[in-house]
Amino acid sequence: MNRAERPRIGDIAREAGLSTAAVSYALNNRPGVSTQTRGRILAVAARLGWSPHDAARRLSSTRTETIGLVIGRSAEVVATEPFFGSFTAGVSEVLSGEGHSLTLQVVPDVDTEMSTLEKWWARRAVDGVLLLDPRTDDPRIRLVEELGLPTVVAGGPVDSASVTSVWTDDDTGMRDAVAHLASLGHRHFARITEPATLLHSHNRTAAMLAALRDAGLPDPTILELGATPGSAASLTHRLLDQRVRPTVILCDNDLVGITVLSTLVDRGLEVPRDISLMVWDDSLLCQRMSPSLSAMRRDVLSYGAQSARALLDILRGAPPSTELHSIPDFIARASTGPV
Amino acid sequence: MNRAERPRIGDIAREAGLSTAAVSYALNNRPGVSTQTRGRILAVAARLGWSPHDAARRLSSTRTETIGLVIGRSAEVVATEPFFGSFTAGVSEVLSGEGHSLTLQVVPDVDTEMSTLEKWWARRAVDGVLLLDPRTDDPRIRLVEELGLPTVVAGGPVDSASVTSVWTDDDTGMRDAVAHLASLGHRHFARITEPATLLHSHNRTAAMLAALRDAGLPDPTILELGATPGSAASLTHRLLDQRVRPTVILCDNDLVGITVLSTLVDRGLEVPRDISLMVWDDSLLCQRMSPSLSAMRRDVLSYGAQSARALLDILRGAPPSTELHSIPDFIARASTGPV
Repeated sequence: MNRAERPRIGDIAREAGLSTAAVSYALNNRPGVSTQTRGRILAVAARLGWSPHDAARRLSSTRTETIGLVIGRSAEVVATEPFFGSFTAGVSEVLSGEGHSLTLQVVPDVDTEMSTLEKWWARRAVDGVLLLDPRTDDPRIRLVEELGLPTVVAGGPVDSASVTSVWTDDDTGMRDAVAHLASLGHRHFARITEPATLLHSHNRTAAMLAALRDAGLPDPTILELGATPGSAASLTHRLLDQRVRPTVILCDNDLVGITVLSTLVDRGLEVPRDISLMVWDDSLLCQRMSPSLSAMRRDVLSYGAQSARALLDILRGAPPSTELHSIPDFIARASTGPV
Repeated sequence: MNRAERPRIGDIAREAGLSTAAVSYALNNRPGVSTQTRGRILAVAARLGWSPHDAARRLSSTRTETIGLVIGRSAEVVATEPFFGSFTAGVSEVLSGEGHSLTLQVVPDVDTEMSTLEKWWARRAVDGVLLLDPRTDDPRIRLVEELGLPTVVAGGPVDSASVTSVWTDDDTGMRDAVAHLASLGHRHFARITEPATLLHSHNRTAAMLAALRDAGLPDPTILELGATPGSAASLTHRLLDQRVRPTVILCDNDLVGITVLSTLVDRGLEVPRDISLMVWDDSLLCQRMSPSLSAMRRDVLSYGAQSARALLDILRGAPPSTELHSIPDFIARASTGPV
């Protein structure tokens, strides 16, 4: 380390042989490390020339009473996929009830998401942040640990000692869905999924594979969506052109489900007579489409609300934790039927 | 005025015989008043003991690069009515592209909306705000004029010298819709509307009345929604129980349209054979329902984007203005047909 530079939390953690999370707790005077460890970390920090200036300023300054949420998706997806509006409304309802505001930014990628988090925290524009769509090996988690930025992740749970996860049990939900569909005689499953770098996609795929293997059924065809909007349609064509055509397709969100349904109809197939379809995250859209879509329901409004409450708890000094929000329910509607 | 108190902009305006908007421009050193008027206002302000402290601090301080949006609706409506998610996404896309953030608060009523605006501005938590749902004689407009808070209203246009309106021409849209429906033989129109204190409801009702009278058709039945969610269903029953039953119902939003449709089906009526139905603001939901809903389409994502750009323009010194966003298009789908 160049001694002329201010040492970063990572440097102190390496020197002390501890996690960045533990160092972050100690330097930010937050619960989560023992008094003894805190003392040791502060000694190492002092030796490396770390200045308590930032942390002291933060502790002494007035809270902004503002929570940040960055959504790393395109504006079109945020505008039309019901998850985001419902989650944001749930967050906002809790914050407003406590006199807090929500700062929202929609950005196209993870890099911009990270620079937004850094900018907000550098300016103390927010007291803490909510993260969506946790990833396998998520660089945002390492960033908030290093910054000491109070954070709740909706999803996961993620592996971090300083970040609270509020999660839904997709594993159990997926197993229930597979059991129901298998009982209707389905043997050839397909799944159109968001990239496996997203933890929820990864977890759902793993649960689907495990459930099918436990039931003695063939492995499913898993196709990952790309960045282009037409992607769901072309993946549907690929599924239909396979030697063994799937009898049921599971999709990761309502919008993908709608595109898949249109493509099936274009190919002259009838749902569910020729092929069944189900989507993740129930919505008014699923209920009102024709045919209505079988869906994994979780209460997204209350998911946002619980995530916001968890963050307010942390800001009031509660230790980080892992909270289960719900197990999604499989809601059977008109788009799934017997083979 | 008690001389011990700091004079408010309203006091200075009264004393100078000018609008609060003009005073606000002058004191905040913004365009919109002549140099001569500015000088006169500053003289009156100085005589009343007004201190330039706040304005000076504001001008010299760093911008927060944050825009505020308060939505005065229930969290359930914000979560499910597609307008809010699309508008917010459009705003957010423009702001993110300019390195700005959006601070969002969902509050249950106008009083809380006003106290939120005052709190934000007192703390300089925002550089300016976007207002939705302008009202007839809107107290929020008077408040932002008095505060000198840079504001864009999505709707209207509102009568204010200091506030920019970005509006959609509902009058022309409504006349087109009525002409189309009249050409299908409809004579008995009904409208289920949000309260007439909302400017868009008031304007649409006035346009509907004028269009029907111009066409020599009977006045419509206009029923206003109350605060309870079951309200749309009970109003539908009232319409159906009238001596002369309407042949077409126009609704102010998608969610109301869905409730009305369900109620018609419950009463054993077929749409559009027995009665036609159309809603304001097209959405994926309207397109995908069965029957698909005829709707007034405007591009809500770009409406949010244009509103955000207008506010950024004002923050860069542009004078307040009135900008037309669009004329809504009547999209005929399966829910409207001949009598």
